[in-house]
Amino acid sequence: MPTLGARFLFLFLPRIVKSSMAALIQPRTLKGFRDFLPETMMPREAIMETARRVYRQYGFSPIDTPVLEYLEILTGKGSEETDRQLYRFEDHGGRQVGMRFDLTVPLARFAAQHINKLGTPFKRYHIPPVWRGASPPARRFREFMQCDFDTIGTVSVVADIETALVIHELLVEIGIENFQLRINNRQILNGVLARLELSDKSVPILRSLDKLDKIGRDKVAEEMEQAAGISSSQANEVLALAELQGTTDEVLLGAGNLVAGNELGEAGVERLRELVAAMRTCRIPDARYKLDVSIARGLDYYTGVIFETILGDLPGIGSVCSGGRYDNLAELYTKQHLPGIGASLGLDRLLAAMEQLQMIEPVRTPAPVLVVYFDRERLSDYLQLSQLVRAAGIGAELYPEPRKLAQQLKYADQRGFRLALIAGSQELEAGTCQIKDLSNKTSLEVNWRDQPQPFVEQLRKSLSQ
Amino acid sequence: MPTLGARFLFLFLPRIVKSSMAALIQPRTLKGFRDFLPETMMPREAIMETARRVYRQYGFSPIDTPVLEYLEILTGKGSEETDRQLYRFEDHGGRQVGMRFDLTVPLARFAAQHINKLGTPFKRYHIPPVWRGASPPARRFREFMQCDFDTIGTVSVVADIETALVIHELLVEIGIENFQLRINNRQILNGVLARLELSDKSVPILRSLDKLDKIGRDKVAEEMEQAAGISSSQANEVLALAELQGTTDEVLLGAGNLVAGNELGEAGVERLRELVAAMRTCRIPDARYKLDVSIARGLDYYTGVIFETILGDLPGIGSVCSGGRYDNLAELYTKQHLPGIGASLGLDRLLAAMEQLQMIEPVRTPAPVLVVYFDRERLSDYLQLSQLVRAAGIGAELYPEPRKLAQQLKYADQRGFRLALIAGSQELEAGTCQIKDLSNKTSLEVNWRDQPQPFVEQLRKSLSQ
Repeated sequence: MPTLGARFLFLFLPRIVKSSMAALIQPRTLKGFRDFLPETMMPREAIMETARRVYRQYGFSPIDTPVLEYLEILTGKGSEETDRQLYRFEDHGGRQVGMRFDLTVPLARFAAQHINKLGTPFKRYHIPPVWRGASPPARRFREFMQCDFDTIGTVSVVADIETALVIHELLVEIGIENFQLRINNRQILNGVLARLELSDKSVPILRSLDKLDKIGRDKVAEEMEQAAGISSSQANEVLALAELQGTTDEVLLGAGNLVAGNELGEAGVERLRELVAAMRTCRIPDARYKLDVSIARGLDYYTGVIFETILGDLPGIGSVCSGGRYDNLAELYTKQHLPGIGASLGLDRLLAAMEQLQMIEPVRTPAPVLVVYFDRERLSDYLQLSQLVRAAGIGAELYPEPRKLAQQLKYADQRGFRLALIAGSQELEAGTCQIKDLSNKTSLEVNWRDQPQPFVEQLRKSLSQ
Repeated sequence: MPTLGARFLFLFLPRIVKSSMAALIQPRTLKGFRDFLPETMMPREAIMETARRVYRQYGFSPIDTPVLEYLEILTGKGSEETDRQLYRFEDHGGRQVGMRFDLTVPLARFAAQHINKLGTPFKRYHIPPVWRGASPPARRFREFMQCDFDTIGTVSVVADIETALVIHELLVEIGIENFQLRINNRQILNGVLARLELSDKSVPILRSLDKLDKIGRDKVAEEMEQAAGISSSQANEVLALAELQGTTDEVLLGAGNLVAGNELGEAGVERLRELVAAMRTCRIPDARYKLDVSIARGLDYYTGVIFETILGDLPGIGSVCSGGRYDNLAELYTKQHLPGIGASLGLDRLLAAMEQLQMIEPVRTPAPVLVVYFDRERLSDYLQLSQLVRAAGIGAELYPEPRKLAQQLKYADQRGFRLALIAGSQELEAGTCQIKDLSNKTSLEVNWRDQPQPFVEQLRKSLSQ
C-alpha cells in the first residue's frame, strides 16, 4: 500500500529538535568535510545547472543511484587505494554496505541491472557527491561532487565526437574562454606497443610515460628499460610517440607513421582524423583542442579516445574535465558486452580555479532586489510591490522587520543585493518608490502601482547595467 | 597548497573498472534503496528545479552540508526512533559518525557555526537526500530527498506570510491546481491550554488530538481524560477548539472567543488574521487555503504558525508540503537565540501522487529531437544539422550508428522523442530533411541549410503542438 506508506513516512519525519538543558555540543564538521555557504553554493549550483542543460541538449538523461551499495558491488573495482578509502559498515539488517566512491562503479551496476529495459545507445548523466575516507595527505576533501556523462552501447565515432563537443560546450557555457581540450587515442600507443611486441608490458610502460613531464625523457627511458625490461631502441620508439609535437595534421601524420602496419594503431589514427574533421565541421576554434599523444589517463581502463581539459590561465591546476572510451563497462556484473565513452567534469577543481581567476562574484543572495520595509501599517503595499517584482521573474526579498533605512541598506550591502526599492508611507500612498542602485548609489522615483509595466522595465534596465 | 591538492585529487580518481575473470557479482540495490531511471529522474529533476527557482525568487539562498556528521551532532535530536534508525559507524580516524536523517539538525549545527558570518535574517534552502535505516513496516524507502526552506533570525509575521506564499507558488509552478494549504497557529491551542491551566500536559493532549480523524471525538476525550488526567469539561473545551469549523472569518472569530483573556492565544489569532489579510492582498484564491485549528504537526517542536498542504484530488496521501514556526533552532549548539520558520516539500510523496494522477509523461529523453543517421559518408552534414538544432536551444540526439530507418524510428518511439529529422544522401546534397512528427506521423520537407531560421521556427512550431 504505497499511499499508506507515504502517509506514515511523513508522520515519522517531524522536523523536530528537542529542547535540552544539557551542556552545549560543539558545532563542527568532520575533517575533510565542509559546509557550503550561499556565496560558494550559488556558483556551484550555477555550474551544475549549466552541466545539466548542456548534457540534456545532447540527449543525455539524468539517473540517480543509491549512496549506499552492497559492499561486494564496490570493493575490488577501483584500486587498492579506493578499497582502503571506502566508508563501510554493517547496516541494521547485518548487511555489509559502503558509500559510493565514484560514479563509474554504480553506473556499471546500474547498466548491468537495467540495460535491457533501457535499450542502447544509453546516454546518461549523473551529478551527485561521492566519498573517500582516509585521504592521502595531498587530498583535502573526503566528500566531493562528480559530474559525469556517458554513452553506453555503441563503439561509433559519433559518440567520441559528441563527447568532445559536450566538453567544449560545457566549458564555454560555464563562461571559460581560454581552455584547451587535449585529445589522444589509446589505440595509437597500444598499436605501437603491439608492433614492438610489448603489449603485455603496457602498464609499467604507461606508468613511466606518465612521469615524462616531471622527470624528463632520459629518466623515463631508464625507468622503462628497468621496470618493464624493454630495450633501449624500444624505449626510444615509445618516447618518439610520446614526444610527437606539432599541428593537428603533423601529429596525425607522425602518429600514422609510427603505427604503420598495425591495424589497431591505424584505426586509432583514423578515428582521431574523423574526430578532428568533425571539430572543424562544427567550427570549434583551432586553439580549443590539440592532439597530444602523450596523455594516458587511468592506465589500462581507457581503450580508445582520451580527453583532458586544461585551463589556459591555470594549466598547473590539472585537467578540469577528463574522460575517454572504454571497452566493457559492466563485465563484473553481466555477460552483456557494453562498450562506452564518457567524461567527468571536475566541479570542485574548476570552482577553485574560477575563484583563483576571480570569475566568481561574492554574492550572498539569489534575489537581486531588496524591498525595504518601514511602515508596519503598510505591509500589504510592501507585499504587493514584492509580488509585482517576482511576477516579472525578478527575485525579490522583503526585509521582514520595519527597521531603520541605514540598517536595511547595510544588510543589502552585506548580501550583495543589486537594487533596493525604498518607499515610506507617503510614497506608498502615491503608489511610488525609489529604485536605488546599490553599486552606483543613484536613485530613481517610479510609480509602480499605476504603471507596473514601465516600472518592471526600469528594473530590468537597472539590473542589466 | 590547494592547487597541488586539487591536482593530486584528480590523479587519485581514475574512472577505473578492473577486468576480472571471477564469477559475476549480482547487480542489485539494497532493500529500501532504489535506482532512478530517466523516466522517473526527469520529473524529479524538474520539480527540484522548480523548487530552486521559486525559493530563489523569494530570496532563499542554497547551502549544502556534509552527509556525514559527528554522531554527537545527530543523536538525541529527533525521537528515539530516529536515533535507532541512524546509519552510524566508526570512520578511518576512529571517529563516531552518522549519516544525516533530516535537514533540520544539520541546519541547526550550520546556523550555530556560521550565523555570525551569515547575519540575520538568514533565508536558506537545501535539497539533498537523507537516510533512515531500519524502517518501520509502513515506510518503503531508507533514502529520500528532502526539499526544505527556512527563514532564521526573525519572529516577524512577514516570514510567516512569505512561507505561505512560497508553498502556494511552489505547488502552482509544479503544475498542481487543486490543493489546499491548511493553516493553524500553535499559540491558539497553547493559549487555550494555558487558560485551562493545562500547559504542562500539552504533549499527551496533542498526541490524543492527533487521532481525532481516526478514532473520533468520544475516544479522544476519553483518552485525554485518562492519559493526561484532565477533566471532562477541560477535554470538551480543547475539543471545541479542535472541532472549530467554518469560513476563514468564522474560525478567526471562534478561535478569538476560545482564547479570550490569554495573551499568547490572542496574539496567535492576530497573527493568523494578518496572514489571512496578506493572502487576500496577494490574491491567493480562497479555495487554496483554509484555517484548520485541528492540525498540530510534530507535537512540541512548532510554536507558532503551522502549515500542511493537501492535494484536492488525493487527500488521503497526506500533506505534500508542511512546516511551521519554531522558537529556537540551535539551542543544543549555541546560546544564540535563533527563532525561525520553515517548510519542507515532500518530493517523493508528491511525485507518487503526480504519477497516480497521471500528471507525468512517460518520456525517456530530455531532448525532443532525434536526428536519424543513414550515410556514413555524410556524417559532417548530420553533425551540422544537429548543431543547428542545439544552437536554437532545442535538444537533439544524433543516432550514433547508420542503421535502418525502421530501427531508428523504433528507438525514437521507445525513448519518447517528439520529432525525427530524416535525410538521406540526396536530401543532404540539397540541404533538406524531413521533419517527422512522431505522434501524428506527419512529415514536412524543409531546407535547413539555406534557410536555417524558417527551419528552426518550424521545429519550434511542431514542438509546441
